[in-house]
Amino acid sequence: MQCQSIEELQLLVNKAKKYTDQGKVADYIPALKMANPDSLSIALYYPDGNCYSAGDVSENLTLQSISKVISLALALMDWGEDYVFDHVGQEPTGDPFNSIAKLEISKPSKPLNPMINAGALAVTHMIKGESVEERFQRLLTLIQKLANNSSIGYSREIARSEFETADLNRSLCYFLKQHGIINEEVEQLIDLYTRQCSIEMNCLDLSRIGCVLAFDGKDPLTEVQLIPANIARICKTFMVTCGMYNASGEFAIKVGIPAKSGVSGGILGTVPGRCGIGVYGPALDEKGNSVAGIQLLKMMSEKYMLSMF
Amino acid sequence: MQCQSIEELQLLVNKAKKYTDQGKVADYIPALKMANPDSLSIALYYPDGNCYSAGDVSENLTLQSISKVISLALALMDWGEDYVFDHVGQEPTGDPFNSIAKLEISKPSKPLNPMINAGALAVTHMIKGESVEERFQRLLTLIQKLANNSSIGYSREIARSEFETADLNRSLCYFLKQHGIINEEVEQLIDLYTRQCSIEMNCLDLSRIGCVLAFDGKDPLTEVQLIPANIARICKTFMVTCGMYNASGEFAIKVGIPAKSGVSGGILGTVPGRCGIGVYGPALDEKGNSVAGIQLLKMMSEKYMLSMF
Amino acid sequence: MQCQSIEELQLLVNKAKKYTDQGKVADYIPALKMANPDSLSIALYYPDGNCYSAGDVSENLTLQSISKVISLALALMDWGEDYVFDHVGQEPTGDPFNSIAKLEISKPSKPLNPMINAGALAVTHMIKGESVEERFQRLLTLIQKLANNSSIGYSREIARSEFETADLNRSLCYFLKQHGIINEEVEQLIDLYTRQCSIEMNCLDLSRIGCVLAFDGKDPLTEVQLIPANIARICKTFMVTCGMYNASGEFAIKVGIPAKSGVSGGILGTVPGRCGIGVYGPALDEKGNSVAGIQLLKMMSEKYMLSMF
Amino acid sequence: MQCQSIEELQLLVNKAKKYTDQGKVADYIPALKMANPDSLSIALYYPDGNCYSAGDVSENLTLQSISKVISLALALMDWGEDYVFDHVGQEPTGDPFNSIAKLEISKPSKPLNPMINAGALAVTHMIKGESVEERFQRLLTLIQKLANNSSIGYSREIARSEFETADLNRSLCYFLKQHGIINEEVEQLIDLYTRQCSIEMNCLDLSRIGCVLAFDGKDPLTEVQLIPANIARICKTFMVTCGMYNASGEFAIKVGIPAKSGVSGGILGTVPGRCGIGVYGPALDEKGNSVAGIQLLKMMSEKYMLSMF
Repeated sequence: MQCQSIEELQLLVNKAKKYTDQGKVADYIPALKMANPDSLSIALYYPDGNCYSAGDVSENLTLQSISKVISLALALMDWGEDYVFDHVGQEPTGDPFNSIAKLEISKPSKPLNPMINAGALAVTHMIKGESVEERFQRLLTLIQKLANNSSIGYSREIARSEFETADLNRSLCYFLKQHGIINEEVEQLIDLYTRQCSIEMNCLDLSRIGCVLAFDGKDPLTEVQLIPANIARICKTFMVTCGMYNASGEFAIKVGIPAKSGVSGGILGTVPGRCGIGVYGPALDEKGNSVAGIQLLKMMSEKYMLSMF
Repeated sequence: MQCQSIEELQLLVNKAKKYTDQGKVADYIPALKMANPDSLSIALYYPDGNCYSAGDVSENLTLQSISKVISLALALMDWGEDYVFDHVGQEPTGDPFNSIAKLEISKPSKPLNPMINAGALAVTHMIKGESVEERFQRLLTLIQKLANNSSIGYSREIARSEFETADLNRSLCYFLKQHGIINEEVEQLIDLYTRQCSIEMNCLDLSRIGCVLAFDGKDPLTEVQLIPANIARICKTFMVTCGMYNASGEFAIKVGIPAKSGVSGGILGTVPGRCGIGVYGPALDEKGNSVAGIQLLKMMSEKYMLSMF
Repeated sequence: MQCQSIEELQLLVNKAKKYTDQGKVADYIPALKMANPDSLSIALYYPDGNCYSAGDVSENLTLQSISKVISLALALMDWGEDYVFDHVGQEPTGDPFNSIAKLEISKPSKPLNPMINAGALAVTHMIKGESVEERFQRLLTLIQKLANNSSIGYSREIARSEFETADLNRSLCYFLKQHGIINEEVEQLIDLYTRQCSIEMNCLDLSRIGCVLAFDGKDPLTEVQLIPANIARICKTFMVTCGMYNASGEFAIKVGIPAKSGVSGGILGTVPGRCGIGVYGPALDEKGNSVAGIQLLKMMSEKYMLSMF
Repeated sequence: MQCQSIEELQLLVNKAKKYTDQGKVADYIPALKMANPDSLSIALYYPDGNCYSAGDVSENLTLQSISKVISLALALMDWGEDYVFDHVGQEPTGDPFNSIAKLEISKPSKPLNPMINAGALAVTHMIKGESVEERFQRLLTLIQKLANNSSIGYSREIARSEFETADLNRSLCYFLKQHGIINEEVEQLIDLYTRQCSIEMNCLDLSRIGCVLAFDGKDPLTEVQLIPANIARICKTFMVTCGMYNASGEFAIKVGIPAKSGVSGGILGTVPGRCGIGVYGPALDEKGNSVAGIQLLKMMSEKYMLSMF
């Protein structure tokens, strides 16, 4: 079952939009506060190049935690599965994304998975390159290819804002450094990580990335294998088990689409073998997920039978 | 890609069997200690009724934690999704299956999910019926129908052995009772729960249950809807996010099949839209999963491309 | 510096009494709800037999957690220091008195100290005797001797009420049983423990017990050594480090008197080498301590220089 | 009961010295590794100026965690009790001194007490002064006065070594910064804190400081009130409830002297109204306390009846 028309999609967006007033725009990063809480846009991208979208698709969002999926793919391409999972675990956790407590209680002290902040910092640390600049460019280039859009860049303003308020991430980094999980300068890693989080695109770009993942890392139009198939599958698995913060379990039941959200209000969705999805709705629920975005995906999952379960 | 012959399957079993000596038979329940650590058997059940098996398929196993999937299905059929998930959460957890700490730290104090012991006890509490006997018979009848085998019963000896050593589960129950999650006599609930865990079958029966789940709760031969489709999907989702204790994340990556294991060494697998799988290998790894069973499923997932990711 | 007159004491009580409306009577045990929240009484007992009191000294209170001090003394007399502290720790904890989480995270799983519920249950378990009745009588007899009042008994009504609502303590007991810290029937231990908590006296009796402890276990009038000196000192140490729940540190700073409180609103105080103190004020603060009682002890500590620091 | 001769003390040291081989010199700070594990020295300082010592009293030690007592006194003198305890708690904790988990779980996120690292960092942050240099000099001057030794300085080498390996403390600082407990540059605070930890003296100096605390902050010889009496009492209280890491409870029972240890192997002891004690024995037990030092204090407490309980 496939979306047939933009009108159809627009109807769903209209329905979901009324949930925006149940959420709040993220305010812990000053630059994110300026987002319009009423926004809601979506794009569906099919392997034949067909794309349906609704809402103001031109609005840009920063990737924030969505970037964790791609940095994981790159680290896996750089180092292989064994090395990466020696430094970060594979298990979901019931703790919040920014928790440090479990790091201490677990032995060995490696982060539970790459989707919580501690794990994502350990992953970004593994991106190869001579300098922050080179490492960032390697990640950005991969993202540009996945979205087939070489104009994608990052917001210097948001990166700076996040860099200045990243004390909890610095705390996590020094903890990881103490335990030998990372061994670079913390400020340098925070610089790289906040740039990564500030990469900017719209929901159309997101949907193209989702489509490549849906087809096991191969661009369905060009047939170029941008990410090895087994790595694309690993990414999708983490999206199911821990992509939506500590609402991942409920999302898997209610929606059933591998997805990763960010506090900017973006959601990257990927329906294996079918299509990619990009959502932008900056009003967040208390778990940090786009409140209207989740409702929209739920409606779509039911209408188009997108659940993989 | 489908299994073509018993010989093919036997080859895989032979390969996986050498991992049995890396595990140990569960010893915390006296009656489980008597299992043969070298055993390994598997059955694959296809919707057309074809069944391939290898190893000593006649060996019986008790369901143990595997039963949590079916008791969840029954509670959902009895009470509906909203009520059940008001009493037990939907999120995976990085804690061990018998943990009590998170119950205390989380507010409200409801168990994180139905696959950890605290959650499974809350679920079994919800099975409707006038008496322990009636509630147990309702669960057993459902299981007999799913396996299409009315001779399935339970081991009184193992149930008694578990009842006598269930102090940690009693501790969990009284904690749940204190917090209003359960309100029946603890000894009565432990009686029902230990009987449920002691339901006995072989891996062939398991594979038939897996096949019904694979086809959204409908028996593919009789076309009878034994479990409503949305409930079957919920069960499969939990099998992915928390079916293999706190190795669920790694299993999803390495194998990618919704599965639920028990400390008896059984694994129930379900490949959506394709087939059901039953495994029995009592030698366990330190997480409590069948060590050779996991290796076998990994080989099969690669050979027959069974991963859903 | 010593209290000179009842009038002096009455003035302090009047001052402290206005704090009663900042607290609430315990309501988790139904029978405790009936206490008068405005009550406040105190008795000071000196080794020469002089006693000053103010407020309605005839009002009875049940010991509740105050009993933990005497059951510890008895267990130490029964088994000696090494055995007892093999089963319960000696360290204060920042966790609430009824916490179970630390039991799980700590290895070995022994309760952190005898003043939290888990530890007190382990201690009561160690009281020697052929039956619950005999063990209870041994404890009661010791308490009667310490208070020099053979009419002290226990409230059957409150014991029953507590027995019926002791699910959290049952949860702790089964956890301890699972880990080999206790090995008797849980219901039997809960029976003994709830009777112990329900032993009834007034603040005058409390002050006599405090005076014996202040003189290292020797009754200052009869010169009989009721508790060995080293055991009396151990009791006073725990009263300082963990006698006032998780406000013990603040109490040590602000008041500096070894003391143990109970949710009935009683406080047993002992000023080493000087006097015993009994307080009763059932309105509790959010930590579970008598809100006016603490204010009264603070004023007295300043006025009579009672702090041991 | 008072020490009568150096010979008497030497005998106790000889007895305690054989425990040194049960411990290990701290190795997590490179510069501390060079200490002689067999060393054991002690000094007792009485208010009349009499001093008894045994062992190699000329050996220097760095204060490490012992400094937490004096920085707390200074912060209290700078800001008063209310302000300081708005930023750091007063409760002992069962967690290790360098734990971060409780910070996260507790609400509000203030450190549990000033003797764990998180709390000590918050306290040092409160020392007033225009610069790190000025703040450090204010602390050093107070310490020189307390020890009546203006030649006391700090080890630049050890300070540097600690600064370079302070990643866990940096992690704690950033966590505290995130939660508004501290608001200065982390590197600056770590600079001040590692200098504070590296202040160098011998056990004779320590015993003089202990004697001033024993007499409520007044130098018994000069009669100058170096620390206000109520602040000196607060310091002694924390030394009892949390001065010996998470062996404080056991130490209070076995020894009963307000004391603070450091990972250098030093122990500052203060017997209220009687004398000060300084110990140096770098071989540590697994809790981080001088293994022979504790044995020595235990023997002395019994021989001279030094326990305050």
